[in-house]
Amino acid sequence: MDTQEYAQQVVRHARKASKSIAKARADAKNDVLEQMAQNLLNGRDELREANEKDLAAGREAGLSDALLDRLELTDDRIEKMAAGLRTVAKLKDPVGHLVDGWTLPNGLELTKKRVPLGVVCMIYEARPNVTADAAALCLKSGNAVILRGGKEALHSNMAIHSRLAEALEESAIDSNAIQVIRTTDRSVVDVLLKADEYVDVVIPRGGPGLIRKVAETASVPVIKHYEGICHTYVDKDADLDMAVSICENAKCQRPGVCNAMETMLVHRDIAETFFERMMPVFKEHGVEIRGCPATRELVPDATEATEEDWRTEYLADILSVRVVDSVGEAVDHINEYGSSHSDGIVTEHLPNAQKFLDEVDSATVYVNASTRFTDGGEFGLGAEIGISTDKLHARGPMALEELTTYKWTIMGTGQIRT
Amino acid sequence: MDTQEYAQQVVRHARKASKSIAKARADAKNDVLEQMAQNLLNGRDELREANEKDLAAGREAGLSDALLDRLELTDDRIEKMAAGLRTVAKLKDPVGHLVDGWTLPNGLELTKKRVPLGVVCMIYEARPNVTADAAALCLKSGNAVILRGGKEALHSNMAIHSRLAEALEESAIDSNAIQVIRTTDRSVVDVLLKADEYVDVVIPRGGPGLIRKVAETASVPVIKHYEGICHTYVDKDADLDMAVSICENAKCQRPGVCNAMETMLVHRDIAETFFERMMPVFKEHGVEIRGCPATRELVPDATEATEEDWRTEYLADILSVRVVDSVGEAVDHINEYGSSHSDGIVTEHLPNAQKFLDEVDSATVYVNASTRFTDGGEFGLGAEIGISTDKLHARGPMALEELTTYKWTIMGTGQIRT
Repeated sequence: MDTQEYAQQVVRHARKASKSIAKARADAKNDVLEQMAQNLLNGRDELREANEKDLAAGREAGLSDALLDRLELTDDRIEKMAAGLRTVAKLKDPVGHLVDGWTLPNGLELTKKRVPLGVVCMIYEARPNVTADAAALCLKSGNAVILRGGKEALHSNMAIHSRLAEALEESAIDSNAIQVIRTTDRSVVDVLLKADEYVDVVIPRGGPGLIRKVAETASVPVIKHYEGICHTYVDKDADLDMAVSICENAKCQRPGVCNAMETMLVHRDIAETFFERMMPVFKEHGVEIRGCPATRELVPDATEATEEDWRTEYLADILSVRVVDSVGEAVDHINEYGSSHSDGIVTEHLPNAQKFLDEVDSATVYVNASTRFTDGGEFGLGAEIGISTDKLHARGPMALEELTTYKWTIMGTGQIRT
Repeated sequence: MDTQEYAQQVVRHARKASKSIAKARADAKNDVLEQMAQNLLNGRDELREANEKDLAAGREAGLSDALLDRLELTDDRIEKMAAGLRTVAKLKDPVGHLVDGWTLPNGLELTKKRVPLGVVCMIYEARPNVTADAAALCLKSGNAVILRGGKEALHSNMAIHSRLAEALEESAIDSNAIQVIRTTDRSVVDVLLKADEYVDVVIPRGGPGLIRKVAETASVPVIKHYEGICHTYVDKDADLDMAVSICENAKCQRPGVCNAMETMLVHRDIAETFFERMMPVFKEHGVEIRGCPATRELVPDATEATEEDWRTEYLADILSVRVVDSVGEAVDHINEYGSSHSDGIVTEHLPNAQKFLDEVDSATVYVNASTRFTDGGEFGLGAEIGISTDKLHARGPMALEELTTYKWTIMGTGQIRT
């Protein structure tokens, strides 16, 4: 079987399995999730063995330490994956939830009810735990899923998949409800992205290159999980203690994630005072500052921020800093250079907070809090499959509900239109 | 200015205007809508004059009578367009509606609030009234809109647009909030479909060729308004009087629209009795029957239905008919050949009704009613911009709410993540 045939078979199998998983009841799905968790724990040794192959290949290929770290499956991480599956088992099943409903004057009874999307295709990079997380969320929301992870994690992903599939095989659910692409051949992705008849949505998670390629190639609808170029704007009327604490947290608590701050905007009137207190904190954390000319006048260590810097998601101990003259200028900068992910203002001035909330065109907008809170778990959604930077269907953290659509059902007693 | 430059200018102007219209209050938008309605009525003569140019060109190009009829702007139709704008003015503004919200254990206050999508691009064919309808719905929901109608209606669309733009010019809203593409050059469409940075959604309404082209070309997210290959399944346990009345209505009340029945499925056990009562009714309406072999045995007039017929939206007095052995076979036929628009069952048997509702994978599914009810107005949504056959974001009739997205806003008092 060549790669094209293989990919065609995967999407056909997924479509067929989607009918089976869509009908599964919550308790059946939860039992499978529990069994999957158990299988991962029981299969620890095989998982680590498969992962060791990926790590060895990664070292040979010269992957960075950061990437190797993300790739590694330790006992602790395997336990966390299993715990994640059990968490999903405990969440409320979104399928069948009545969104809305009413009776028309002619007696027709309308209901708008949540149903699974059908077939979800995830295209992602590096971390193998995404394989288990995404499989669990798609299963719980009644969807079949096709998982296409990074080539670096192929053995790990296949090993995780085997443990999950065992649990499905013992259940009444078609085991093709969860499939992992078993080849690194890129032409498979092209088939997936064009398989409108079989795949209902593609969710790409990864770098800008991956996302752009998917958006440009796909005829299947896409929900983009784009990078996070997140901003914090320190207003003239900010509580500066609070601003220092929030900016430190947003930049330094975990610089390698998408909701970390990449650019700090500071009002000119308080820039000098604020920098005097803020910069020593960044220095202590080893954060490199790249600044606009006004920043560099006040912060001698700062190097020059280029046009490119304002558009960069560093995911590292680097911060671009710009001095602005007003909240309006901050808003314009964010809408121009940001990625519509998470942006915040620190201010005590109500009209500026309102303006910022209204005019920043991002999925999540904060007043007086760290952008690091953008996360399905933190938001109280119980889990997340990712963070949508799109505006259609789902915006911001995506969890179970966002993996469903709705269906209108209309009950009549013989009504006809006149 | 060449076509490319023109298209680039349109999308840039739309993005800029989207900021202005997003901030407009409901009463300001309603005043503009009222003024637009008045302008259309006052401009009747110019509208008919422009329309006469399109009609003359259409006659010369040999357009069918049906197409010429759809293209024509009569006084009555102009009055209906104006009335449509006033109806939209009376609808509730969806912008700012609080979808959900809660306070997290750490005191952060989350709200999920409706906001405009931004820039909507409509690509449609023939009927010039869509220009006014779509402009009104986008304006009311706070979006800037780019309207690209059919080349046959260019003069009519530009004349309608002039009347609408006059009303905007007298208001505080940027008049580029409504733009009509003023050329029939197709390369404009390619620019629109790739303008991710400026356009938030493309809504194509038209034939399958148009929809497919848009879905394949666009990197901007698309909500497809695909054809309606609608089915009615007459079950073994149907009330046959009701079935005759529903099928007559679904097929004959207005055959040229997307929610009309194109294929009738009939259970074998009642096929003979049902056909005896149903077929004379279709004959009276001049409906041509194309049947499966079992149908043709019972209905001598019927010609052969080909594989192609099951996939065809006739929009005419033609009906394909198939005899099936079970509700399961009916469901399979619909999921295989339908367009996920509107499908119904006529039955008194509860489990069959349930199975049909659960398993038919369409936007709207009916029990004992005509599929002709699939319409924003009939559903009580007040209006519609179209009927989505997609599963993401909007499914079935799309009105004001479906032209919005949401934004998460998070109010804090200095919270940081630990």
